[in-house]
Amino acid sequence: MTLLKGKPVADAITEENIAVIESIRKKYNIKRRPTLAILRVGSDENDLAYERGAKSRMEKTGIEVEVVALDAEVGEEEYLKKLRGLNSRDDVDGILCFRPLPKHIDEDKVQYEISESKDVDAFNPVNLIKLIDKDESGFVPCTPKAVMEILKYYGIKVEGKRVVIIGRSNVVGKPLAFLMLNKNATVTICHTRTADLEREVKNAEILVAAAGSAEFVKGEWIGKETVVLDVGINFKDGKLVGDIDTSNIDEDVKFTPVPGGVGAVTTSVLAKSVVKVWKKKMDESFDEVSDDF
Amino acid sequence: MTLLKGKPVADAITEENIAVIESIRKKYNIKRRPTLAILRVGSDENDLAYERGAKSRMEKTGIEVEVVALDAEVGEEEYLKKLRGLNSRDDVDGILCFRPLPKHIDEDKVQYEISESKDVDAFNPVNLIKLIDKDESGFVPCTPKAVMEILKYYGIKVEGKRVVIIGRSNVVGKPLAFLMLNKNATVTICHTRTADLEREVKNAEILVAAAGSAEFVKGEWIGKETVVLDVGINFKDGKLVGDIDTSNIDEDVKFTPVPGGVGAVTTSVLAKSVVKVWKKKMDESFDEVSDDF
Repeated sequence: MTLLKGKPVADAITEENIAVIESIRKKYNIKRRPTLAILRVGSDENDLAYERGAKSRMEKTGIEVEVVALDAEVGEEEYLKKLRGLNSRDDVDGILCFRPLPKHIDEDKVQYEISESKDVDAFNPVNLIKLIDKDESGFVPCTPKAVMEILKYYGIKVEGKRVVIIGRSNVVGKPLAFLMLNKNATVTICHTRTADLEREVKNAEILVAAAGSAEFVKGEWIGKETVVLDVGINFKDGKLVGDIDTSNIDEDVKFTPVPGGVGAVTTSVLAKSVVKVWKKKMDESFDEVSDDF
Repeated sequence: MTLLKGKPVADAITEENIAVIESIRKKYNIKRRPTLAILRVGSDENDLAYERGAKSRMEKTGIEVEVVALDAEVGEEEYLKKLRGLNSRDDVDGILCFRPLPKHIDEDKVQYEISESKDVDAFNPVNLIKLIDKDESGFVPCTPKAVMEILKYYGIKVEGKRVVIIGRSNVVGKPLAFLMLNKNATVTICHTRTADLEREVKNAEILVAAAGSAEFVKGEWIGKETVVLDVGINFKDGKLVGDIDTSNIDEDVKFTPVPGGVGAVTTSVLAKSVVKVWKKKMDESFDEVSDDF
């Protein structure tokens, strides 16, 4: 049994992030560090847990965090005002908006308002278009990006492989399908209406489960050559479990544990995107200065 | 051998389009007909052939056509000026921009300029986002839409089926994947880097070939239960052929011929989109009038 643990992946990305920050600060002789703003509505438990994880990761990386916490009842206009404020502030590099938003805020409208260039979790659909167009100036949601980082870290090639994705959400399944397609995988998208899921799972060389249903993919369906990435985070009998029931999985199968797998990598991927925005901004602003001479 | 011919599908759609136009003209007692504007740069043979087909279909349907033909050397500013002119004209319902545009016009920029509500061939990426979000107020490119209309006409259900799409272009493969996914198919996207195409083809319950390579999918790979839609239009030895080599295909396989299959349906689908825009506009404008009373 080979566990594809998230921690070494997250550590390696964090190390790289720190190195980039330090080299830029030295290069331009600046004190400024990258800054992530988090826009949260209400106090959902999942949001708060993610926020704690993100803050801890950003601290380790040397990224400042500013949390804007709004009341659960906040109106759309007030929300947009805060978001636009963050868009226009030069000292804010990346913005993370917790979703889903409460029903009285129109997410379909709001999503176009976040500044494309600060949209580190790819809330704005323009970033999905850029992904589809293989335009690398855009951003990708953190979870599918974390899947790709894990595969890269463990040296698992995607090109030409049969990749089966279970789940078609806008935050994981769909963007992941494009990330895989852009790396030349043959991609199959499955979901609750797939007639014979077991057959699809057996067929996979790389399997990604992102359906959010506790242990519904049976370990015995999975061929021993298959690499498995479990994106599910579900509670069952008071325990955190993935979408895969690993009790009968073949001992040769490589898979990400839950917890400690994909979920452990998302905040370092978020940090990487914040560093990317900040580095670009620093490079451009100092290039502009030197142009003035 | 059952040919899924395009003509009866196109005829049925045209009949429906005519009925909608007539009922709206009668309802509001108006003379105005839907109008499609075609924006063409240069005189590419494929563009001209499609334009002839479109004009003939629109004439049959009772839709006016206005062709704006620009010189092959036209600059981006001039192109945009024409496009914005068509956007703002109230008597133009739908706009079709021939693509690809010449290299000196930045298509990535221009695509966002076409009015979303007149974008009958889904040039603007906002319409792809709407497709991904299952928002039916948007438009879908005509060729993938034609594939869906053929399946619907011949009573072939998509739900839960294994649909294999060969080709990942932004005009056919990708939007078709979402159309199929929205209808709850299990979708596999293959391409030139797929390691074992024969295996994927064998696995398909519905196969769509949209790779644009003459007869490269062998008929003998195709299971006799499979329904085949051939989007390819290629020239080989002076003859028009599809992406499928049908010489050794099982006699039970249902497939669309080339020519006379998918290609025969695209202009009626285009007409349907023009009628949709026009109908909405008429309904809204006459509703507004009655609101005044």
